[in-house]
Formats: sequence, structure tokens, C-alpha cells
Amino acid sequence: MEQLAQIVTKTPLLTGASAEQKREEIRAYFHQTFSLYETLFDCLARDQAYYLRAEPLRHPLIFYFGHTAVFFINKLVLGKYIQRRLDERLESMFAIGVDEMSWDDLDSTHYDWPTVAQTRAYRDRVRTQVDELIGSMPLSLPITPDSPAWVVLMGIEHERIHLETSSVIMRMLPLDCLRSHPIWSATCTESGPAPENGLLPVAGETITLGKPDTAASYGWDNEYGRKTVAVQPFRVSRFLVSNGEYLQFVQAGGYRNPEYWTEEGRRWLAFSRAAMPRFWSRRHDEYYQRNLLQEVPLPLDWPAEVNYLEAKAFCNWKAGQTGTHVRLPTEAEWTLLRNRLDADQPDWERAPGNLNLEHHASSCPVDRFAVDGIHDLVGNVWQWTETPVDGFPGFEVHPLYDDFSTPTFDNRHNLIKGGSWISTGNEATRYSRYAFRRHFFQHAGFRYIESDHAEVPVEPVNTYETDDLVAQYLEFHYGSEYFGVANYPVACVQTLLARIPGLNRGKALDLGCSVGRASFELARHFERVDGIDFSARFIQHGFQLKESGQTRFAIPVEGELVEFKETGLAELGYAGLAHKVDFVQGDACNLKPRFSGYDLIFCGNLIDRLYNPALFLGQVHERLNPGGYLVLTSPYTWLEEHTPRAKWLGGVKVNGENFTTLDGLRAVLGERFELAGQEDIPFVIRETRRKFQHTLAEMTLWRLK
Amino acid sequence: MEQLAQIVTKTPLLTGASAEQKREEIRAYFHQTFSLYETLFDCLARDQAYYLRAEPLRHPLIFYFGHTAVFFINKLVLGKYIQRRLDERLESMFAIGVDEMSWDDLDSTHYDWPTVAQTRAYRDRVRTQVDELIGSMPLSLPITPDSPAWVVLMGIEHERIHLETSSVIMRMLPLDCLRSHPIWSATCTESGPAPENGLLPVAGETITLGKPDTAASYGWDNEYGRKTVAVQPFRVSRFLVSNGEYLQFVQAGGYRNPEYWTEEGRRWLAFSRAAMPRFWSRRHDEYYQRNLLQEVPLPLDWPAEVNYLEAKAFCNWKAGQTGTHVRLPTEAEWTLLRNRLDADQPDWERAPGNLNLEHHASSCPVDRFAVDGIHDLVGNVWQWTETPVDGFPGFEVHPLYDDFSTPTFDNRHNLIKGGSWISTGNEATRYSRYAFRRHFFQHAGFRYIESDHAEVPVEPVNTYETDDLVAQYLEFHYGSEYFGVANYPVACVQTLLARIPGLNRGKALDLGCSVGRASFELARHFERVDGIDFSARFIQHGFQLKESGQTRFAIPVEGELVEFKETGLAELGYAGLAHKVDFVQGDACNLKPRFSGYDLIFCGNLIDRLYNPALFLGQVHERLNPGGYLVLTSPYTWLEEHTPRAKWLGGVKVNGENFTTLDGLRAVLGERFELAGQEDIPFVIRETRRKFQHTLAEMTLWRLK
Repeated sequence: MEQLAQIVTKTPLLTGASAEQKREEIRAYFHQTFSLYETLFDCLARDQAYYLRAEPLRHPLIFYFGHTAVFFINKLVLGKYIQRRLDERLESMFAIGVDEMSWDDLDSTHYDWPTVAQTRAYRDRVRTQVDELIGSMPLSLPITPDSPAWVVLMGIEHERIHLETSSVIMRMLPLDCLRSHPIWSATCTESGPAPENGLLPVAGETITLGKPDTAASYGWDNEYGRKTVAVQPFRVSRFLVSNGEYLQFVQAGGYRNPEYWTEEGRRWLAFSRAAMPRFWSRRHDEYYQRNLLQEVPLPLDWPAEVNYLEAKAFCNWKAGQTGTHVRLPTEAEWTLLRNRLDADQPDWERAPGNLNLEHHASSCPVDRFAVDGIHDLVGNVWQWTETPVDGFPGFEVHPLYDDFSTPTFDNRHNLIKGGSWISTGNEATRYSRYAFRRHFFQHAGFRYIESDHAEVPVEPVNTYETDDLVAQYLEFHYGSEYFGVANYPVACVQTLLARIPGLNRGKALDLGCSVGRASFELARHFERVDGIDFSARFIQHGFQLKESGQTRFAIPVEGELVEFKETGLAELGYAGLAHKVDFVQGDACNLKPRFSGYDLIFCGNLIDRLYNPALFLGQVHERLNPGGYLVLTSPYTWLEEHTPRAKWLGGVKVNGENFTTLDGLRAVLGERFELAGQEDIPFVIRETRRKFQHTLAEMTLWRLK
Repeated sequence: MEQLAQIVTKTPLLTGASAEQKREEIRAYFHQTFSLYETLFDCLARDQAYYLRAEPLRHPLIFYFGHTAVFFINKLVLGKYIQRRLDERLESMFAIGVDEMSWDDLDSTHYDWPTVAQTRAYRDRVRTQVDELIGSMPLSLPITPDSPAWVVLMGIEHERIHLETSSVIMRMLPLDCLRSHPIWSATCTESGPAPENGLLPVAGETITLGKPDTAASYGWDNEYGRKTVAVQPFRVSRFLVSNGEYLQFVQAGGYRNPEYWTEEGRRWLAFSRAAMPRFWSRRHDEYYQRNLLQEVPLPLDWPAEVNYLEAKAFCNWKAGQTGTHVRLPTEAEWTLLRNRLDADQPDWERAPGNLNLEHHASSCPVDRFAVDGIHDLVGNVWQWTETPVDGFPGFEVHPLYDDFSTPTFDNRHNLIKGGSWISTGNEATRYSRYAFRRHFFQHAGFRYIESDHAEVPVEPVNTYETDDLVAQYLEFHYGSEYFGVANYPVACVQTLLARIPGLNRGKALDLGCSVGRASFELARHFERVDGIDFSARFIQHGFQLKESGQTRFAIPVEGELVEFKETGLAELGYAGLAHKVDFVQGDACNLKPRFSGYDLIFCGNLIDRLYNPALFLGQVHERLNPGGYLVLTSPYTWLEEHTPRAKWLGGVKVNGENFTTLDGLRAVLGERFELAGQEDIPFVIRETRRKFQHTLAEMTLWRLK
């Protein structure tokens, strides 16, 4: 315990009065972290242990030993804060971890790892290099994300994450690979029978999630932004689920009964053949738990350590027992509990839980730290939540680490909250949000809640649209303007309204609405708007904007490099309009009869994408109110892939003569409509940072006769 | 003969003092033409004859009866001079002829032709409509191609063409389908033994071809423009080849001896199984000739009527007999002869040959009309030339008839010159140029010449590049500017020269030169330029510009509609520079050693199109002189179709971090080169009239260390 107390650190404040004092604070935090990380590897009894692959989904520990050093160099090179690499080979080999692999995605690459001595020598060179940089970098306070000091802190906090994840891997190594260590052997020695768990009521409350931009400590991209959630009342378990409580589930045949498991859980069970938690074992009818450096008889009052899938199965089993709605807390519910604690790292005197290496180098009984009767609000082990990780509105990636969070916004990574005994630095702060695939193991367990409602109040994740075409259209509708050309859907709506001053503004139809911008723009002027598109891929984004107010996409920059973007209704000026818009998938050439009674039918870049444009145009008058308008915009880009040549409205030779699309429109629409105006409207679609489509659409306005 | 004299007309002048007088002149010319055309069809003995298809490569005559009327309506609708069609069905059915079919391209469409009475009634309606239009159309003098009167003249002259071509088809009908007619039976009644042909010397001369824009009569698009040709001395046959002279070739086994025939001629022989000219027949050892309405014993002193392939075979046989270079005249050689005649329609008192229906309704003996001992300079039958039809420099299509000539610029249509007995209107003028596939029959024969040179002085035809991608690049290099963005190859050269003030200007290499614009631009500044491209499709246009000074292309407008363009070195300011430029096909990744010693290597939009850019960049320094520069421009659009992903220079994640193409260029080039500058240069590539690629290339300038 004395040894442990000596290595306790706090993550530095970004603020302060003296830049030079801050520089030395960062220097000290860097060396403490770098050294602490190395002490963990001192637990490896011999060099071979660095190369064992106890867990097939992870690299051997030699990778992690080098990786946290390489990370400093790679980010500093990327940020052009240092000019020269130290060792290209090692900096390539130690660059990419495999933490995000699925169990059915095993890595088959062969590595020719360097020796431990080589790696240690490399770490020493990095230490010197970073130390020099800390001494020489420009530094002003507060430290902001574009400052070199931020990149140094990023490297330090990154190493602190791996301090924890490497300790998890070590729990999977054979014990004879490990040896005792003054710091890491300082485990909790207490254990006993599991306390009886029970539920405490929690009042509902509307709370705001997200770390303020002004917060005084380093944060990862996914912590920032702001989201308000109305949390309904629930009842929460007083304790984390202990080994003893979880054992009941195991002994009740929980691992053999698929009905408790989610579909994903059943697939994982089939793969893993698990019969109990990963760090348990059973010999001669006795259960044991593997900790970092030792195995002990299962400590029944310590928290059970499981993955999300196991935790969820336990809840389902429990619900079956009680006949109530039992589940994990959501992120918001967990935060409501966490809000009962004012204390936060780095401000606290001492951690209000088994956290930040301030109490033990292991878990401890679940009944040691309580607030209002609720134990382990933070610390001991991470707590799984029901919430797949997602950025909060306002989310922005850091340019030097744009794949820290974005790959996890995929509905497959759930948040863990609260930290474990070995969570330090940023990991131990109030706002920290880490997420892992639901089958992964960390020093993580769970508490459960009982709710009045069957459904889990979790919103769909705003996954990044990476389909190039859909992302292209999202940027086209909601992104930046290029070459000074105004946003096209907005310009179309504004132009047509200016050209039709007396238009009734009841119902409008945005046919071929794609990702929906014109529908929202029309909603500023019409009472109701239907947005219809043939493609579910496209329309889902309009729908998502309507439902969640935001959507995300990644657009190509150059080659396979992408830029991450997000957009929101409020920032576009559409706050409060979403209820007027409905998005429906549909075929313009075969629309349901209920889509009628419109004062305006707007078809933006639609007609040259239909398989039978004349069929559509020949019937569209039936859907308009008297005095209604059909407005078409198109660059008349006829392509066989969309429209068979025989169905092109124009751009063909008819009887040997040139016959334009405008000729064709007049021929098809002339009987029912009067051409009331024509206008060219330019648009630009970005393909890459340097390549764009630049097009002149023709808008034609057709008044119903 | 009296009847014939009554129908002689002259094509109206475009100039005059009184617009109203001109209006009535046009009205009269229209009715004369419309009526004359109908008299030809009066030769058909019964209605069934309209529907016979005596010649499988042509429509039956009912089509041509309707077609010349429909043409007026279709062109007037296209030009928006009339608003309403008269009969959509007929105007579709009678729209497109099949004169351009090859013998191996037989039409299998089934037509449901209208009756003769219906067609005649339709013609009457057209006559009324056009007469009304002539009365009401705005008219000022001179008449110009954008005037409605020009379109009326176009319709009239078009009908006069079909007067002749229909008469050719009638020569193929069974005689019992035809009947005598006051006009069309007025044939020449004289014939006798063939005169002995012989050669007369013609002095060489440099002459200019092409109808001046200021000429006072209607012309088709292919007549205009201007081309200067140095004609070498030759000897010309005094007479057109007579039936008697041609009979020697037939009797010498000319149709059975492939050695006289061109490759194309041999293919035609195999298809047609011809044994003598198309309008000859042989019964009981006697030869007969089919004229328009009668068959007569072969008139030995009338001109032989053959296609180009037969005429050419005769020349080759004749050359074998004489041991000299015998061939057909080129267009220029024919024109040199024609220049001996001052007279031209419409100015002449009487036609100086059997032309314009002023002498006979048939051919006549070849020794009736002479100038300087050379007979039939014009008239009697058309004269095949060695010259495949092509536009002269300055060629422009008429927007209402953009496929009059352009489809014939294909190296498969040879010019006929001089007109026949039934050539009237424009057909009978000095500048008229008609062209048919070399196997087609008209009232056409030939004269031959003897030359001192084996080769035929014919230039390759500037066929229209219709490959969309190549045409796109021709427009990109040589066409219009869009969105105010300057011509890209020119901007690149100007920018790089401005950025490298002291650059030696010996040899430059334009690698990836595409269609060659930068090569010509570099030739303004360097002593020698090599233009190299991987694609022969592209580089042939640079080569053609170097050789002929011009090139042509058709760019998409909308759908399948195209716009015809041409460009020339002189108008681009590159006159006299072509000799400095060499175009060679080559692979940048595997260049021959001789391509070295350059002061500049310019690679415009090349590197992201190479299959191994690093291989190229790793060796390129060997080709530069000391102090030389490598200049790259590229939008870094990496695509798997051009470059395997593993070979992308950048735009990839390297060790998990973004690695741009510029990073990659520095890595590959940094050892040998110093980056001396960077600059963005925009470019625009037109895809259709409304759709463009708008791109920002990055230019990097690399100085050899």
C-alpha cells in the first residue's frame, strides 16, 4: 500500500498561471506515466512472456510495450511537431493494435517482433525525445486541442489506457510467466461472503450529458458535446453484482440456457464455449478467480467480471426470477447516479472508490464505498451500460486522432463507465467514456436496475455513413459550399417560391428527396411535407435527422482517407420543423394513391433517374391541387443504368432530328400543364477534397392548367 | 427536248436588292422543285411500283416520295419556324433514309407504308404549309444560314438531291413498272463507237479548295472552309471512260481477277458477284444498258457508270497495261481541271456540259463537250475521285442538319464531282461536293489520270472522334473554357515557367501528354518536346494535329446528342511549331532509355493513373539534365482501376495514420529532388452541356539535387 501510494497521479489541469510550471508538471506526469507503464511489464518473469499470445484476439505484450512509445512519435510526426522518425521499422510494427477485432475476425499476420532489450532501448529514446519536446515546445495556458502540449497529454493518457488494457492481458497469461512486484502485488486481501443485493429507488430527472469545452482537464473526442436526456425513475441495485450473486446464475444453468442470451450472446457462447466468467476457473468443485499476478479462491464479495453479453444474460435471468424489468443502466441512468458524487479527479483528496490505484492493485469487496446506500458509484470494476457508444451532438474528431472514437460508433461497442481499480488519469474522471465490443473483457462488471418499462431507453447510434455515394449526397445536402455555389436544395426551394408568388402552402411533396434537405427547407414554408425516395439507403438519413436531429457521415478526402462530418437540424435553422416532415420510401413511377392533394410537387434531379419518366409525368397531375405546381430540376444526364434508352425523355434523335429533354417535357406535360418558367441552377457535388462534379440543372416550373 | 427546256431552273442567289422579289423567287423555285420531283414519280406505271424494293440497300420509292416533303416539316419544326406537325406518323416514317447502309448491314425493319394517295395528299399539305411560310417568314438580304429562308432552300436543295437519287433507284426497277413521260423520256438518242481515249498533260499548280463564306448561292456545310493544295503535274484522260473503253476491262476478265481490286473491292465483289457494271446486262452475247425508262444496246460512246471500286480496278488494270501510275484524280486534281471553266450555275447562259437537265434526260456520248481538248469537265455522269470526303479547315455544321456531312467523314465515303445530266440546283454548282460509300451506284463514272508518282496524294480523313472519353479530353485540351477556369495544359505550362525562371529550355518531356496540348504549348518555349502517352487512342490526336494541323471531335450535349467541334494549330497560335514536337506511345513506368537529357519533365495528371507510380518516380531523375525539373500536377484521385491500392503513393493509412500523396511524393522523391514549389491549378472537364468535372490539381515542382 505504501508503494502504491507513491505512484498515485492526477491528470494535469489545462489551466494555470505559469506556463513554465505547467511545462514541468507535464514533464513529471509524462515520466511518471512512462515509468509506471514499465513497472507493469516488470511483472513479466522472463522475456518469452512478452511473446506469448494468451488471448488470440490480442497482440502479445511486446506489442503493447512498444506501442505506447511509438504512439508519441507517430502523433508528433503527424502533427509535424517533430521532423524525424526514430526507427521506421519499430514505428510501423508497433503502430496498430487489434483491440477492435471481433472473435470471428482472427488476425493471421505474422510478426517478427524485436527483442525486449531493443524495445526497451527504443522506449528510452522516445522518453528522451518527448522530454526534449516538452522542454522546447511553445506553451501557453490554457492548453487547447491545437497545442503541442495537447498531443503530449494525448500520448500520456493513451499510455494510461494501455496500462489498464495490458493489465487485463496479463490476467490471461499463465501464472508462471509472472512474478510479484512491489506495486502490482499490492492487492486487496479482504474477502468474504457476498452481501445480499437489493434495490433502491432513484427519482427521475432531466440531465445533461457531455464534457463542457471549458472543462479544465484533457478529454477524448467522444466526451465533448452536449445531450439532454429525461431519465425516468428506476430502482438500482445497491451493489455491483458480486461473484456470489453471479454464481447463482451460473449454477442455475445460465450458460447453458440460450433463452437468457441475446442473439449476439448466443453466437458468442457458441464461439467461446464459455461456462463461467473469463477469469474464473473451477477445479474439484471449487471456483477460483485469476487476478493480475495470482489466483485466489473465488472472492464471493468481489465484483463479478464479465462482458456485456454475460451481464445482459444475468439480467434476463434475474428478470425471470423477479417477474420485473431488469436490465443494465443506460449511460444517462448511470450518470444520474454518478451525479450524487461531487468529487472528481484531479480535484479529489482521495478517490471515493477503488479507483486511480489509490486503494488496491485489484478489486475489493463490493460493499466498501457507498453514497446514499449505493455502493461503487465509481471504481472497483467498470460498469457495463445498455448504451452503444455514440458521439454527443457537437461531436468533433481531433485531427491527429480521427479514429479514436469514430470506428466505435457502429452499434457494436457499448459504453463502460466508472473506472476500475487501475483506471487512472482521464480514465478516472467523471466524463470519461470508454467503449468496447460487447464480448470483450476488461476489469468490468455491472450493476442492474429495475425499470417500470419493458423497453430500454436507448437511441439508435448515429453510425457514420461511409457508403461513398450516400456520404457524397449528405455533404451535397448538408455540408460545405464549394466554388461559391449556394446549397442546391435550399436554392431550389428559394427559387421556386420566388418564381411562384401566389402558391398555396398547404402540402408539398419532395419526390426523389434523397437525404432530405429540400424537405426540411420546404417545411419552413408549407404546413406538411412528404419526402419520398426510392432508396432506403438515402432516405434513412432524412428520417434520422427528423428523429434524432443529427446525422453523421465520412466523406473522402484523398484515396481512402476520410473526413468526419456531422450535421444537425438546429444548426441548419430547422429547429421545431421536423414534425411537419414525413419521409417515406416510394417509387415515383408507382406512388400510392394517398400521396396526393399537394400544392407543390418538387422533383429535384429526379426525372433522369427514373426507369420510366414519361409514365410518372403522365400521371403526376392527379396528385396536385387546382393551381398547384410541378417543379422539376435536372441536368438531363440520361444514363442507361437508370433509364433504358427507349424511355429517355429527350437527348435523342427523333426521326433523325435532335430532340432535347425540354422538347420531351413539353410533349409529355404540355396537355395538362403550362410552362411557367425556366431557370438554370448550379450545383456542386464533392467527390474528394480536390474533385467535384459541377453541374447546371435546369429548373422548369409547370402550372397545372 | 422542248419539255425539258421548260423545267430548267437555277438555284437562287442569296443576294439581291428586293426582299420581296427574292421571296417570290424562292416561292417559285420551291414549287418548281416540288412539282418536278413529283413528275419523276409520274414515271411509275402503277402504285405497286412505289413499294418494290429493287435495291435491298434502299427503301422503296414510296419512302422517297414522302421523304422530301417530311424533310421540310422536320427541319422547320426543329428550327421552331413552325409550331405544329402535320402528321406525326408520316413524319416519323418518312424521316430517315438508309442511303448510308453498307452491303453487309441490311435493314430488316418492317414498314407499314401509307398509300400513294395518302402520301400525295400529305405532300399537298406540305406544299401549302411551306408556301405559307415563304409568304410570312421574315426575310432580309443576303440570306444567311441562320435565316428561315436558308432552311427553305435547304429543303429545296435536299429535294433536288433526291430527284437524282430517286432516278438512280428507278433505273433498278423492272421496266414494266415504268412508263414514258414528256420530260423524263427526253433522252439522248445519239450513240456510236467509243472514241479512242488519250492523255493530255496538265501543269501543276497550287490551288485553294472550298466555297467562300461570301459565295452568293446556297451551300452545304462540307463545301465551306478553305484548303490550299499544291497539285503536281499529271496527265489526264481526254474523255470519261466510255462503255467501250470499260468493256475492254470486262472482257479482259477484270471482274474475275482479284489482283486489280482493292481489299475492299474484293469484299464487294464477293458480296455482289458482279461481272459487269450495275446497269449493264448481257443477253445472247449482246450488252445492253438500262437507263431511266428504257433499256438500249450498250451505247459504247456513253460514259461507263460504275462505283469507285470498279473504277479503281479499271485503273489498276490499265496501269498494268501501260506500266505507268494510273489512278483516279484527287479532288484537287479534278478542281484544277474544273478551274478551266469559268462558267457556273446559276450564272451561265447554258450549261457547258450535259448537266442541270439542260441537254438530255440521260447520259450522252463522252465527246460532246470539251475545254482545251478535255471532255466532260462537268456533267454527263459524276466523276469518282480518290479523295475520301472530309471537311475543309474551318468546317462547321449547320445546326439544323448536323448529320448531313459529319457521318461521311469516316474514310469510307469518296467524293464524286462534276454532276450528272440530272444534277440540278446546288448539285450543278462548282463547289458542290457529294460523297457516297465506295460501293454505291449513282449516275457516276470516272476519268483517269497518269501520274509520275506511285502514291496517291490523299491525306488521312479527320474522322470525328466520337469515343466519349477521348472527345472529352480533346474538349479539355482544345475546346471551350467553362466557369471562367483557364485552359489547364496552357495554365500548367505558364505556371511552371513562371515558377522556374532560370530553367534551361533545351528538351522538354510531356509525359502522359494525352491529346497533346501541353506539348504544343511547351514547344513555344523549348527547342524540342517529346509528348508520350500510354494510350494510342489519345496520342493519335496530337499526332494528327502535328501532321494535318487540325483535329475533330464530337462532344456530348445531352443524352446521345452531340456537338461537332474542330480545332487547328494555327488558330491556337502554334503555327510553325509542330516540327519541334514528337508524339510517341510509351509507358511512363517502362520508358525507353533514349527518352532522356531533358531540362523539364512535365507530368500532367499522370501519377494517379500509373500502375506503379513509385517505380516511375524512383527512376525519373536519370532522364533529367543537371538543374532540370520534374513538375507534377495531380488531383490525387487514386482509383483501383488504374493503380492497385498497394501502389498508391498516398491517400492511405500508414501505420494507422493518415498518409497523403504529398507525404508519399516527399518519401519517394526526397532523396534526389528538392521540393521547390507547390500551387493549386483548377481544371474543368466537360461531360455534357450541363455536367462538368471541376477539380483542383496540385502542382509540385521538384528540382534535381
